[in-house]
Amino acid sequence: MPGNYKKGYRGENELVHMLAKKGFMVMRAPRSGRINLPSPDVIAVKSGKVYAVECKSRKNGFKVPAEQLEELLQWEKIGGSETYVAWKIAYKGWFFIPLKKVMENNGNVGKGFCAENGKPFDEIFGE
Amino acid sequence: MPGNYKKGYRGENELVHMLAKKGFMVMRAPRSGRINLPSPDVIAVKSGKVYAVECKSRKNGFKVPAEQLEELLQWEKIGGSETYVAWKIAYKGWFFIPLKKVMENNGNVGKGFCAENGKPFDEIFGE
Repeated sequence: MPGNYKKGYRGENELVHMLAKKGFMVMRAPRSGRINLPSPDVIAVKSGKVYAVECKSRKNGFKVPAEQLEELLQWEKIGGSETYVAWKIAYKGWFFIPLKKVMENNGNVGKGFCAENGKPFDEIFGE
Repeated sequence: MPGNYKKGYRGENELVHMLAKKGFMVMRAPRSGRINLPSPDVIAVKSGKVYAVECKSRKNGFKVPAEQLEELLQWEKIGGSETYVAWKIAYKGWFFIPLKKVMENNGNVGKGFCAENGKPFDEIFGE
């Protein structure tokens, strides 16, 4: 799905720069040269606090595969990061759903679920 | 210098897997699709502690450019990471020199300097 791929890339890129503007140090996962180790799309760090973010830019709801949830959980449990699935909804912006909530819902993320559990950017990363 | 490039890539890859074996969550900076934001080569995270590592695989000494030192310093000061310049010396392995030491030496890293200030992998990341 090259369309989704490009959209996802643009989405991540936007998020990375939003975080940098808020004074976070950020790293985006490589697209090529993957290392076969679990990794979120974006890591943001400030004052020793780590955020791991898996980004989705989709028109409709989606399911995060169980394997990917497990990998993200490692970043939370072992890495000590605060971990989110971030959904960019057109005309509404980004919503950050805590990994735990997504796991409780078996990886399913729909619009109602997102409205209930997703937090806006500023709530997590500051005004 | 495609030779150095390849060597550097292999070096980073090796380090990333050494860290993973020690139970760190790791991310390697992208080679392509760079985001024009300061970034070390490798980030390693465990229990909320962040390490930022700039990797060098060189036969001889080298100089880390002032601009790159400043970028790494941001990861330390703003991100709160422990930051190292890591040199892989053939047949001797990796040596991790604290960023501060490298800065005090104006970015110059030679073999004597490395012997004096570089720490082996296990000393930092555990036996």
